[in-house]
Amino acid sequence: MNKLLAEFIGTFWLVLGGCGSAVLAAAFPDATNSIGIGLTGVSFAFGLTVLTMAYTVGPISGGHFNPAVTFGLWAGGRFEAKDIAGYVTAQVLGAIVAAAVLFMIVYGKADFKGVGGFASNGYGELSPGHFSMMSALITEVIMTAIFLFIIMGVTHKDAPAGFAPIAIGLALTLIHLISIPVTNTSVNPARSTGVALFAQTGAMSQLWLFWVAPIVGGIIGALLFRVVKSEK
Amino acid sequence: MNKLLAEFIGTFWLVLGGCGSAVLAAAFPDATNSIGIGLTGVSFAFGLTVLTMAYTVGPISGGHFNPAVTFGLWAGGRFEAKDIAGYVTAQVLGAIVAAAVLFMIVYGKADFKGVGGFASNGYGELSPGHFSMMSALITEVIMTAIFLFIIMGVTHKDAPAGFAPIAIGLALTLIHLISIPVTNTSVNPARSTGVALFAQTGAMSQLWLFWVAPIVGGIIGALLFRVVKSEK
Amino acid sequence: MNKLLAEFIGTFWLVLGGCGSAVLAAAFPDATNSIGIGLTGVSFAFGLTVLTMAYTVGPISGGHFNPAVTFGLWAGGRFEAKDIAGYVTAQVLGAIVAAAVLFMIVYGKADFKGVGGFASNGYGELSPGHFSMMSALITEVIMTAIFLFIIMGVTHKDAPAGFAPIAIGLALTLIHLISIPVTNTSVNPARSTGVALFAQTGAMSQLWLFWVAPIVGGIIGALLFRVVKSEK
Amino acid sequence: MNKLLAEFIGTFWLVLGGCGSAVLAAAFPDATNSIGIGLTGVSFAFGLTVLTMAYTVGPISGGHFNPAVTFGLWAGGRFEAKDIAGYVTAQVLGAIVAAAVLFMIVYGKADFKGVGGFASNGYGELSPGHFSMMSALITEVIMTAIFLFIIMGVTHKDAPAGFAPIAIGLALTLIHLISIPVTNTSVNPARSTGVALFAQTGAMSQLWLFWVAPIVGGIIGALLFRVVKSEK
Repeated sequence: MNKLLAEFIGTFWLVLGGCGSAVLAAAFPDATNSIGIGLTGVSFAFGLTVLTMAYTVGPISGGHFNPAVTFGLWAGGRFEAKDIAGYVTAQVLGAIVAAAVLFMIVYGKADFKGVGGFASNGYGELSPGHFSMMSALITEVIMTAIFLFIIMGVTHKDAPAGFAPIAIGLALTLIHLISIPVTNTSVNPARSTGVALFAQTGAMSQLWLFWVAPIVGGIIGALLFRVVKSEK
Repeated sequence: MNKLLAEFIGTFWLVLGGCGSAVLAAAFPDATNSIGIGLTGVSFAFGLTVLTMAYTVGPISGGHFNPAVTFGLWAGGRFEAKDIAGYVTAQVLGAIVAAAVLFMIVYGKADFKGVGGFASNGYGELSPGHFSMMSALITEVIMTAIFLFIIMGVTHKDAPAGFAPIAIGLALTLIHLISIPVTNTSVNPARSTGVALFAQTGAMSQLWLFWVAPIVGGIIGALLFRVVKSEK
Repeated sequence: MNKLLAEFIGTFWLVLGGCGSAVLAAAFPDATNSIGIGLTGVSFAFGLTVLTMAYTVGPISGGHFNPAVTFGLWAGGRFEAKDIAGYVTAQVLGAIVAAAVLFMIVYGKADFKGVGGFASNGYGELSPGHFSMMSALITEVIMTAIFLFIIMGVTHKDAPAGFAPIAIGLALTLIHLISIPVTNTSVNPARSTGVALFAQTGAMSQLWLFWVAPIVGGIIGALLFRVVKSEK
Repeated sequence: MNKLLAEFIGTFWLVLGGCGSAVLAAAFPDATNSIGIGLTGVSFAFGLTVLTMAYTVGPISGGHFNPAVTFGLWAGGRFEAKDIAGYVTAQVLGAIVAAAVLFMIVYGKADFKGVGGFASNGYGELSPGHFSMMSALITEVIMTAIFLFIIMGVTHKDAPAGFAPIAIGLALTLIHLISIPVTNTSVNPARSTGVALFAQTGAMSQLWLFWVAPIVGGIIGALLFRVVKSEK
């Protein structure tokens, strides 16, 4: 139960911090004349949610905060199949509660007129830069594959101890620096689900891709690391 | 006395660095045509004040620099009640002296016409993005709660040694990346008090919220960590 | 073979992440009205590819991801001549595959009209800021020399253990913060080769400089470190 | 001699990287329509020069790269008076050579029309934001004082080993995030001298302040740390 609570809180923070920074601060005061945090700031926000929470509850739950990480670490031989369902449930619940809290904050804005995309993920017309479904699939599979490849490596006993949360958090920052224009960057089905429930742009109809691609990619990345490391 | 001096200097640096960067460099040369540091730079400035001073005087005073941290660590069983008053006094004095120094610097600007908001915190009409008092309350309580949750975790003996100032400093950066548009981000009553004394926008009338919400949030976050960790 | 696979994947990530962020996210939604990541974000992206992969596969291959690093470490007495050809081949292949994947992603953009410069390196008319060939040569030689000087130092047994990937990755970030306007920043012949093959601006005709200058610079930097350290 | 060579190279890198990023990349392609690195990128560049070189040659020379640091550490009891002259000479020479190299790079720009301010420091009419001499003095003294206070603390045996270059480098980043609009940020007489020799705006006539204020501030900061630490 401590582990599930840790995953709930960590994923809550990932969505509140990452999607919250995107919704509240990316373009401020407005898109055409912004001193807001832009995509660079949003990228750091996502990464720092993981960096901070991995140091905080990593010793408790391992610090996944992401179903693709949970599945990937299972494929990598680092996590037991019987614990997947609990972890994923806690992650999705944390993401949904975070999205609800973010909705409450945004609702109090003086000129509130609805949440719009609400930092949800999408392809085609819902891609920030109007990238195709194929581009989105390639991007999400490869980004999550490399994410898990990195996670497997930096938490391996051969890597210097204590630095893993820095490497993993900044890997997530890097992934956002690359791919926000393509899919708004998911690599995390829980994060996608939480905000899609509140988005007013039809994000739910595309949510399947942000479950399939990250989990497939995560499994590929973890297996690839075992090949490179010659682990059986 | 060494501890109080360390808290005074640390909070002085937090306010001079964080609020100073906001006042001096956020929008430069001007808001409509800026190569200034924007909200991303201000967020890093706040976080780096804590990262640097926590490494510097952390071994002396623990490196709170913030009444909400002091109250939170007391609730978390890491700090004695009898020392709270001294710490909070030193922090508030450090913040006020920093605001006075910042005023002196700004006063020397060729086109000085008053300090305006002076990086003070606010809600409603004094919220940068015009968020309601309820949005401000939710934001400040939750941000400070997670801040203390992180502090409790990364300074726990189970966390890797030496990394706590990085995690705590970057947590403060992250909190600013999210919430500057809502309240200008406090999570620190001393920081709010220092600049409110000089602000010309009525910030003093809203100062109560930036004492109540961070301290309540900090206590909640520290207690939450004890629950997740099953500490009594 | 594990080493070569590690170099292949690491260089793949360097080009996909660094050049990918430049192509996809530097100016978003467009150059005149951007909340994109700008040159700061691109600089962090390049650096974080190396930071993350050096922690991940550093224990396997040493984490070069760059022919100039491989030649430099050979000159520095840290790498055997017989392994250079394999490493460089793996790096160039990784860079080419990354450029091909990036092409596939960009191809799916609704308003795709060709890749243009595709984050390739250049001088004169192909320099982002129209710097001369001489400026480009000076810049690439010195930047790579200092890069190898840093790599030699931070991986030396006298340096604190575990921090090398942070120092090396952020050195690459710094090099990009300085020199993108001059040459679009190479310091890495593999990175230059991968995207030059796809660029539509004649980058292949200038590719020689981005092999010669980084390798010469890398060798100078490594030898300089041995002088400063009084190593024979 | 190894120490002096290390200080020469480190200060060369500080000026080439910090001032170079400001001159080449702060506003790109131009000031009114920039995706350049802005003051945030310049701030990180300065800090990362120190972070990278402190890890690289810190074990050789201690990694000062700055006469104010050398004088401060002498006042702090960490450096011998007889070595000051050599260190300061090496630092100033490194800064001048870096400025000369930067001049050569800039000279090769197609539309070169002179170097202008060349990232030099100034007050009054030469202050980026037109701050008075008094504001400049206060800023440079206090910023350098806190810089040395931090350096004394994070290199103390009570601080966690290995993290000092991160804390010191990011302290310099923070100082730039705050104070570029006031003086263009010196806190380093060598850095100020190197570029002032090439500037076309009269920076040499104000150079005295950027020797006096940082050295006075550095000595104050180091002594303050001894007070806080109760060292004799």
